[in-house]
Amino acid sequence: MSRRPTTRTLETVRDASGQVTSQVRRTQLSSGLRIVTEHMAGARSASIGVWVGVGSRDESTTTHGASHFLEHVLFKGTGERSALDISIALDAVGGEFNAFTAKEYTCFHARVLSDDLPLAVDVLGDMVTSSLVAPHDVDAERDVILDEIAMHDDDPDDVVQNLLAELAWGAQSPLGRPIAGTTESIEAMTPAQIRRFYRRHYVPGNTVISVSGAVDHGAVVKAIRKSFARQGWLEAEAAPGDPRGSRRRPKVSAGTAQVDRPFEQVNLVIGREGLTRDDERRYALGVLNTALGGGTSSRLFQEVREHRGLAYSVYSFASHYADSGLVGVAVGCLPDRREEVLDVVRGELDKIAGSGITADELARGKGQLVGGMILGLEDSASRMMRLGKNELVYGDVLGLDDVIGRIEGVTLEDVRAVAAEIFSRPELLAVVGPA
Amino acid sequence: MSRRPTTRTLETVRDASGQVTSQVRRTQLSSGLRIVTEHMAGARSASIGVWVGVGSRDESTTTHGASHFLEHVLFKGTGERSALDISIALDAVGGEFNAFTAKEYTCFHARVLSDDLPLAVDVLGDMVTSSLVAPHDVDAERDVILDEIAMHDDDPDDVVQNLLAELAWGAQSPLGRPIAGTTESIEAMTPAQIRRFYRRHYVPGNTVISVSGAVDHGAVVKAIRKSFARQGWLEAEAAPGDPRGSRRRPKVSAGTAQVDRPFEQVNLVIGREGLTRDDERRYALGVLNTALGGGTSSRLFQEVREHRGLAYSVYSFASHYADSGLVGVAVGCLPDRREEVLDVVRGELDKIAGSGITADELARGKGQLVGGMILGLEDSASRMMRLGKNELVYGDVLGLDDVIGRIEGVTLEDVRAVAAEIFSRPELLAVVGPA
Repeated sequence: MSRRPTTRTLETVRDASGQVTSQVRRTQLSSGLRIVTEHMAGARSASIGVWVGVGSRDESTTTHGASHFLEHVLFKGTGERSALDISIALDAVGGEFNAFTAKEYTCFHARVLSDDLPLAVDVLGDMVTSSLVAPHDVDAERDVILDEIAMHDDDPDDVVQNLLAELAWGAQSPLGRPIAGTTESIEAMTPAQIRRFYRRHYVPGNTVISVSGAVDHGAVVKAIRKSFARQGWLEAEAAPGDPRGSRRRPKVSAGTAQVDRPFEQVNLVIGREGLTRDDERRYALGVLNTALGGGTSSRLFQEVREHRGLAYSVYSFASHYADSGLVGVAVGCLPDRREEVLDVVRGELDKIAGSGITADELARGKGQLVGGMILGLEDSASRMMRLGKNELVYGDVLGLDDVIGRIEGVTLEDVRAVAAEIFSRPELLAVVGPA
Repeated sequence: MSRRPTTRTLETVRDASGQVTSQVRRTQLSSGLRIVTEHMAGARSASIGVWVGVGSRDESTTTHGASHFLEHVLFKGTGERSALDISIALDAVGGEFNAFTAKEYTCFHARVLSDDLPLAVDVLGDMVTSSLVAPHDVDAERDVILDEIAMHDDDPDDVVQNLLAELAWGAQSPLGRPIAGTTESIEAMTPAQIRRFYRRHYVPGNTVISVSGAVDHGAVVKAIRKSFARQGWLEAEAAPGDPRGSRRRPKVSAGTAQVDRPFEQVNLVIGREGLTRDDERRYALGVLNTALGGGTSSRLFQEVREHRGLAYSVYSFASHYADSGLVGVAVGCLPDRREEVLDVVRGELDKIAGSGITADELARGKGQLVGGMILGLEDSASRMMRLGKNELVYGDVLGLDDVIGRIEGVTLEDVRAVAAEIFSRPELLAVVGPA
């Protein structure tokens, strides 16, 4: 069955005079590669992200850390370009150029002046399709990653968040393990394993490219079809992979985990099992999270910091994955404040579980979420992130008006119900600090 | 002598069709307050910063940490607004709202949709002119700051940079001390001391307000004249303070300082005395710094990370103050790599001191600096930062074309001369990590 490229317009925004201020278009190539662009009137920059649907949760015990390792190795060179050539290309034009690996995806991204976009497309296409994954490069990069792991190990926030994930999903579960791997798994990883991982996951059907800014959709598609055609990469015929989400919901454990470290502060995260990424209650949870610990007017900031001076940093968060999620409160405090902090935070969680939030908090939470979203739209990089992540994890770009409508539609009862459900679940407590 | 407000246009940029795309205007009120705005065509947001020319270097031994303490206390309330009211005001519209304290200035800043700018001006004016500095608020915030100090003490980067400053300028010198103060100085600070510090330094002649984005200069000046008139704050007649710079150059010491901490990594900074902020050679130093350790194509990144896998993070920096400066290389590595890292970095510094950089590196360094500057101009917050900091520390806003011209004008000989001078100075070495 031959598939032809298909292109459609997803969203067009016009100003009061009818001029198009932004337009989102999507092309799917016969290889399954998806390209989503957003033209922003008046922009001078362009941001591009190559999103590959692979992350630490796709790793086995023996490939633990392979997604992140591979992300590093892709900067080490191709048949056309050495590592230095890759670095020079984007440094020379002042572009920002980086990558990150998460539990469910890997992203390579650049922000450049729009005239330099073809250069960025060319370098990224070369890296993604034609990395050499040379054994001596793998070995040099292994040492860099071991040092990066040591760096994360010196960061109390990273240590406590990794501990929470391990407590929630277990050290044997991919979701429960640190993204970068462990010293043991990285020391044991062979170039052949990394090469197999690369060939298996870096395929067009598992990839989305998002581009925003002063860009023309047709020109971007043309440049990508040229650059990513290297090594016959676009010749496969395939449908894009389905978004994750069909799998069984992993069990989330409760209880306490503590790691003794000679830090000055103790870092705590008090968590609960949360919502999956496609749970419709996530908008209500967003408003709840904002009222609970999303800004300086939030209950936790007011109670923990403003009234009691217990901690400099206190906030709540909600993380969503295809089939699981966590909600939590993170606090760093002096060790002798630990019990008081726990009492105050637990008291606030009980209160919000029992009676939800006020009408004022509902209105403010919505204003904060919607205002923050609109402020984020001025920047080509944040638009690129929105497009790429949406297309990859939902198989679609959620319209801004639609998202705003769903936030505005959240009721007090929606928030009360989600608060009552989540905060009546068993507590997870992760603690890092002096014994 | 009565001073009348004066307004002038500093910079106008037009596009190819003659339309104004940005315009910088400056008004000086009779009180000495300076207001600098940049209208950006097509922007939807506005960013505002209130810059007060006071920082940790203006503190005595007994007021060590007062600038930063006061920055915190200003969020605690006025006669019109409680701490919660202040937080609610900007949270409710999704605005970003924060502050920071440096060695030579304190900045309160917000980014909002342009319709909400009058709200931000009103809240900032209330905070800056009418803070209660109430004793019980000072005491609650004291605990928050003690926790913040503990947090910085758990951050290896912060610890090693503070150690470098102490090594360079001495623990008795304001420049050599940590901005947040010490546990001892914060515990001893009284509300009366903070109030005196506030009255003395938060005066119109010592303040610059910068605003960028979808803004009209006249409307901004009018809103500021209303909001900042509280407490008769604008009634004084004064000239703006001179930029710092006339004072004697403090001595920069050399040698090694080590702090033993049970971290996984050892963090090193290898430094030299650098240049003051108004030294004309700073443009050549900018290009040198870029070639040395300013990106992934830089010599240090290539030698330390790419070729040898010695460290995940390695970069160089140049910090400038009114009468002093530092240039340094920061690396984090595993403890058993420490000597090799030092050898490689010192080798690169010797090489660049002896023969400067290549023509390719010169061209690339200029491209990187200029490209990065232009990319930064899309964002109202970074334009606001440029205006405020320039007006405060130089008493003028350096034109973009002028700055670009100076960067473009840097020659190989300029870079060679500044490299030879700086890197022949005695070495400072700050080390934090396991003994």
